[in-house]
Amino acid sequence: MTFPTYATLIEVGPRDGLQNEKNEIPTNVKIAFINALKGTGIQELELTSFVSPKWVPQMSDAEAVLLACLTPNKGREFVLVPNSKGVERYYASGAKHAALFVGVSSTFNKKNINKTTEESLTELTPIIHELKTRGHFIRVCISTAFYCPYEGKVTPADVINLCQRFAELGVHELSVADTIGMANPKDVYHLFSNLREALPSELLLTGHFHNTRGTALANIYASLEAGINRFDTSAGGLGGCPFAPGSSGNVATEDVVFMLNEMGIKTGIDLERLIEAVDVVRSFLTHPLDSKLYPLIKKGQS
Amino acid sequence: MTFPTYATLIEVGPRDGLQNEKNEIPTNVKIAFINALKGTGIQELELTSFVSPKWVPQMSDAEAVLLACLTPNKGREFVLVPNSKGVERYYASGAKHAALFVGVSSTFNKKNINKTTEESLTELTPIIHELKTRGHFIRVCISTAFYCPYEGKVTPADVINLCQRFAELGVHELSVADTIGMANPKDVYHLFSNLREALPSELLLTGHFHNTRGTALANIYASLEAGINRFDTSAGGLGGCPFAPGSSGNVATEDVVFMLNEMGIKTGIDLERLIEAVDVVRSFLTHPLDSKLYPLIKKGQS
Repeated sequence: MTFPTYATLIEVGPRDGLQNEKNEIPTNVKIAFINALKGTGIQELELTSFVSPKWVPQMSDAEAVLLACLTPNKGREFVLVPNSKGVERYYASGAKHAALFVGVSSTFNKKNINKTTEESLTELTPIIHELKTRGHFIRVCISTAFYCPYEGKVTPADVINLCQRFAELGVHELSVADTIGMANPKDVYHLFSNLREALPSELLLTGHFHNTRGTALANIYASLEAGINRFDTSAGGLGGCPFAPGSSGNVATEDVVFMLNEMGIKTGIDLERLIEAVDVVRSFLTHPLDSKLYPLIKKGQS
Repeated sequence: MTFPTYATLIEVGPRDGLQNEKNEIPTNVKIAFINALKGTGIQELELTSFVSPKWVPQMSDAEAVLLACLTPNKGREFVLVPNSKGVERYYASGAKHAALFVGVSSTFNKKNINKTTEESLTELTPIIHELKTRGHFIRVCISTAFYCPYEGKVTPADVINLCQRFAELGVHELSVADTIGMANPKDVYHLFSNLREALPSELLLTGHFHNTRGTALANIYASLEAGINRFDTSAGGLGGCPFAPGSSGNVATEDVVFMLNEMGIKTGIDLERLIEAVDVVRSFLTHPLDSKLYPLIKKGQS
């Protein structure tokens, strides 16, 4: 087995992480958090979302965050564009990297954004065309790629089919997600091996794993074996409360960096600085961090 | 990649788990815990230890626990025999499955039991001969097989050499341990592949992983790929406090059962009953459980 020498971690803490926090995080704290993250060596991150402030009040300061943080010529700085209503705000912000979102499971998609998967595709198609015309980078987050909380196990063929349709539309990256943290490494290896074969080699493929049941690092290891070297991760494991099952967050960036370091796979991320970045937001959270490395590094015993 | 259809989990909660608990657990609670564990379908478990009561007061009731729990003709019920002083107590107890212990790192071994690795081997050799003469099953726990807290990274050749010497002595099982939870799945795959090749095929090889840095399930997955299908696990993740770095316990049995179930690998263990067994000791612990599945199953949302 040959592993890559380098892996890219796409930091989703400021968006996917904070959007699930109950407390309102002050805008200046978000800005300081993002700037601290950029200082760790992280090259790609999700900054915020143009979701409706009615649905996700935590992201209502998207314009202010981007005004302070956006440096679109340095790395990739993603902004979530959930639907056609968010597009104008996105273009006005000056962002150049758009993240779109769709669930493989129609039931999940409908419960989340009141559209079937097909209806989402129909809405996203002209958005993708316009983004391409303007030369923007397009990342599509494919959620419920393994399990749906309503439909149960998802058929790999359905995931591959949906991914191929986005590939035909010419998107640049697909982030394939185990949304509820139910995937196992055997299935992960098979799905990513098949996706890598079915999709154009220039299309970036990213694994997005939640650690709800402790399997995230095993799933990342299995993805690496399948030739994947991009992973969405969240500093401090932000995004979920360990005491609120079902809302568990992304795997902690620091835990992934540790495992990859030990495997000889570089990420370019400074662990000490990453922990400092987590400290910027920590006191605003209402729950313990879901991170193994954070307490170890804080106590200097890692 | 072909995975086994069955894996054996050796439950170490009552010994490796409870011996690290600060609170004195009443003997009748230990007995109830062991009996509950046996009711889950678990076939092999570490019951207690004949360590000196001066060093580990928690295990001072070893005789009483064995008197109540030992059914040596049913599955494998291991009792730790740390040195020649413990042997007579062991034989008197009626146990038939002995667990011995040695560290690959001499520094670690010396700090733990005041003997170098060589001195331990010298002491254990006649014990092993006598156990064999009496027809007992001999399990040897090989600690610090990846990292030593004092010496750092351990050389795989040293682990293989030590394991081969125990194989020559005719022991039945080697449990190879990532004692401080620093191993990564790449190294785990290599070590276990090499051990499987270097050792007689009838010698049972077991992986013992701590989840200190979140890598235990990844390491188990890598072990499975190397042909290993025996793992030491601890119900409820007993044995370590997440807030006391360095003392983190074994990976939680329920988390391993979940991942294996999802991979189609049977363990014969009933998850609901396992959670009930954890409940027997839970109120006697001074820290939260280090388990992902426990709270999910308790809330009926798994």
